[in-house]
Amino acid sequence: MTDYQELEARHKRMSAIGGALAILGWDQSVIMPEGASQSRAEQVSALSLIIHEMQTAPDMGDLIAAAESDTALDDWQRANVREIRHDWLHATAVPADLVDRKIKARSASELTWRSVRAEDDFAKLEPQLSELLTITQDVAAVKAEAFGCGLYDALLDGFDPGRKSAEIDVLFDELMSFLPGVLDEVLAAQEAAPAIVLPEGPFSTQAQEALGRKVMELFQFDFNHGRLDVSLHPFSGGTPDDSRITTRYAEDDFTQSLMAVIHETGHAQYERGLPKAWRGQPVGQSRGMTVHESQSLLFEMLAARSPEFISYIAPQLREAFGGSGPAWEDENLVRLYHKVERGLIRVDADEVTYPLHVILRYRLEKQMIEGDLAVRDLPEAFRAGMRELVGVAPETDRDGCLQDIHWPSGAFGYFPTYTLGALGASQIFQTATKADDAIMPGIAKGDFSALLTWLRANIHGQASKLMPGALIEQATGEPLGTKAFRGHLEARYLRG
Amino acid sequence: MTDYQELEARHKRMSAIGGALAILGWDQSVIMPEGASQSRAEQVSALSLIIHEMQTAPDMGDLIAAAESDTALDDWQRANVREIRHDWLHATAVPADLVDRKIKARSASELTWRSVRAEDDFAKLEPQLSELLTITQDVAAVKAEAFGCGLYDALLDGFDPGRKSAEIDVLFDELMSFLPGVLDEVLAAQEAAPAIVLPEGPFSTQAQEALGRKVMELFQFDFNHGRLDVSLHPFSGGTPDDSRITTRYAEDDFTQSLMAVIHETGHAQYERGLPKAWRGQPVGQSRGMTVHESQSLLFEMLAARSPEFISYIAPQLREAFGGSGPAWEDENLVRLYHKVERGLIRVDADEVTYPLHVILRYRLEKQMIEGDLAVRDLPEAFRAGMRELVGVAPETDRDGCLQDIHWPSGAFGYFPTYTLGALGASQIFQTATKADDAIMPGIAKGDFSALLTWLRANIHGQASKLMPGALIEQATGEPLGTKAFRGHLEARYLRG
Repeated sequence: MTDYQELEARHKRMSAIGGALAILGWDQSVIMPEGASQSRAEQVSALSLIIHEMQTAPDMGDLIAAAESDTALDDWQRANVREIRHDWLHATAVPADLVDRKIKARSASELTWRSVRAEDDFAKLEPQLSELLTITQDVAAVKAEAFGCGLYDALLDGFDPGRKSAEIDVLFDELMSFLPGVLDEVLAAQEAAPAIVLPEGPFSTQAQEALGRKVMELFQFDFNHGRLDVSLHPFSGGTPDDSRITTRYAEDDFTQSLMAVIHETGHAQYERGLPKAWRGQPVGQSRGMTVHESQSLLFEMLAARSPEFISYIAPQLREAFGGSGPAWEDENLVRLYHKVERGLIRVDADEVTYPLHVILRYRLEKQMIEGDLAVRDLPEAFRAGMRELVGVAPETDRDGCLQDIHWPSGAFGYFPTYTLGALGASQIFQTATKADDAIMPGIAKGDFSALLTWLRANIHGQASKLMPGALIEQATGEPLGTKAFRGHLEARYLRG
Repeated sequence: MTDYQELEARHKRMSAIGGALAILGWDQSVIMPEGASQSRAEQVSALSLIIHEMQTAPDMGDLIAAAESDTALDDWQRANVREIRHDWLHATAVPADLVDRKIKARSASELTWRSVRAEDDFAKLEPQLSELLTITQDVAAVKAEAFGCGLYDALLDGFDPGRKSAEIDVLFDELMSFLPGVLDEVLAAQEAAPAIVLPEGPFSTQAQEALGRKVMELFQFDFNHGRLDVSLHPFSGGTPDDSRITTRYAEDDFTQSLMAVIHETGHAQYERGLPKAWRGQPVGQSRGMTVHESQSLLFEMLAARSPEFISYIAPQLREAFGGSGPAWEDENLVRLYHKVERGLIRVDADEVTYPLHVILRYRLEKQMIEGDLAVRDLPEAFRAGMRELVGVAPETDRDGCLQDIHWPSGAFGYFPTYTLGALGASQIFQTATKADDAIMPGIAKGDFSALLTWLRANIHGQASKLMPGALIEQATGEPLGTKAFRGHLEARYLRG
């Protein structure tokens, strides 16, 4: 066995253990009785530790170095070695005691967050979040050293490999140069259009679920390799051959569960379309959070919220929920699905205001990591930022800096990938629809096969062969930018 | 860390991995989409291999020897070392290539069995079952060498540690001395009694499930630590803190699903009642298949099928299924649940004829393992044995030697534990009801707390501190025998 083959064998086992962890994680969110938490935590910890031990095995560095000088490897294999080194650097950069301190601080802070959010008591979270921030800065410092980059970039790299905050600054500055103006215009246009009539419920969970499954099938979800279930927060889990997506149902609003199902189907189809030949290898995995989010947003925002698809699905909505009258007319449903609003809550935001929520969080977390913003000053900075960027300010921290789990769970560097993913979704969709002019007519009759074929070839099937930036550039012919996104917003909301 | 503590730490990790495997196994039977089979097999194989590697680690033998001479250990710790050596002997006795051959032969034979059973084509299974038998004989030979016992006993030990076929021969001879006579008398008495009137369905799955959950709560099943779901064959899986039991529903017969739920609840309550202090250690595990089956049969046969409980539950059955008339009268329901019949299928057998099915299989598998019966002669030997022991002979192999999965899956030595468990159930129940005279009055009003308290103290909480034979002797004051079982049959079926 060559050193490269030895690396493949080890990663195959790590991936199988990772797959088991994915199913256990799904089970915990969907199925597990609450009393099993502690024993489940022990199972998860044992499996995670085995992966960590394998990843940091003493001979791993030598094996990687040997594989790097193996001249017989092809492109995919070389890319696999690059990914293996990348994972190895992340795993070995942080000393064991710091890993341990971070796990404990994160667990304490996340647990506290769950209770203080409802009570709107930021002061109670502050010491634990400060402690977690300090430890995260330490982690950033050792990773920055290992990767030869800045503190924030060292964290960002864990979510969007190779991405630099300098690139994000440019993209976000571009967004800020037009988005506030576009938002004003969109709100004015919306004001001038007929008022949105809300469909009246209740909308039975059963009918919503049946509709969700039907739409998943339109998006070519393979139920022989996946499931739809219910959880507190929608997510896409499982493995490429066993996609487990979830949603939640509100009986007074069917629009959220349907779009959540489509969003998660986008994530699931990405995983499902990863190349079978590279299952179990780092190079065969999805290409980080920016590309992942581009696939879910492409399905949800570009395809499913298009007037074409809404007009296609409108009769089925009327049938599923027995709807009739003004609220159920195609034009009203389009306006409903295109509603734009200066709101307080990120996860409820539309695609026009969403980037503003993200830019605020990006600015704040960069300041925190770089030591320019103390946790105790976060609530006020958050309020001021909301006022400046979104144009509304929360009266409570529950609707402000306490609304998201990311910081209390130590995920600094994650937020920008939502908006980078939105930019990618527009850019990729624009390229795809130009490359294959059967895609839009397909969407207009609920047939997503042409779209999926293009994505399989140009995104899903590429897995992690290239770095995220290079993948998007190869697929679309240019680096990730804001032009397609701007064009999409203007076409949909100003010339729609 | 002492050598003993090192052993505990390793077994804690193996147990956590085992717990993950238990959840994955449940998922596979209940939830998993079919297309995920191959990736699931890879996950299960990776985790199983890790356990095997840990169990056969080169320093394991020395650690065990050192722990055995550690004079500071208490009773439970010493018993833990005994169990650790026992598991280690089983794991190390069989050379890796033989393990591998057995896994492959078992997998091929089981797969073939699934298809030939429906086609009633034993000839197609014969070569693979012969191959599997030969390999199983080889496994038995190396284990017999390691344990210093006979071939069949070496296999039996994997299901009922320490049990000898010489003991089984005595018990089964005793059974044969009275059971055929008792069966004749029971059938005659049944003939003389009013005919059984079958309740007419359909019985909705929903109503059956609601009733099953209600009865599980009577049996003190803790839904904060467990679930009830549906699978093709009822089973009890998961872990002590996360009991996953299943049943299946037939809309034309509610009696089977209800009794299956109670049977599996008996298994689950045993696991749940294992001592918390010994979670994750071999000594903290359940005491083999005989004791396990004694707990499920005690719940089902002794407690739930007692006239006292049937009379208690009868009004709830009538209410759940809207039943009225002769079929739903208490006396008819008791006769229905006590129906005895010379039948062809083991899993459908009543408690009077069940041991006859088992004794036949025990005799045949012992002959096969000892080389006195060739696989090609099995169908005829099975038919002849059925005629002799049960009094009816199958016309097809599907209803004969192809009916059970045990042999095609390589589980030689398993069958006798069903009947040993039935003997244990009667003996333990007799002791419990004598020791606490609140148990029977409790059962008559659907209150199983006194029964459970006794079982928790005398069986569940003892885990694997003693060997199975010693555990039953300690709990009941005498070695496992047939007296209580005979008394139970005569009381219920002849003097009932």
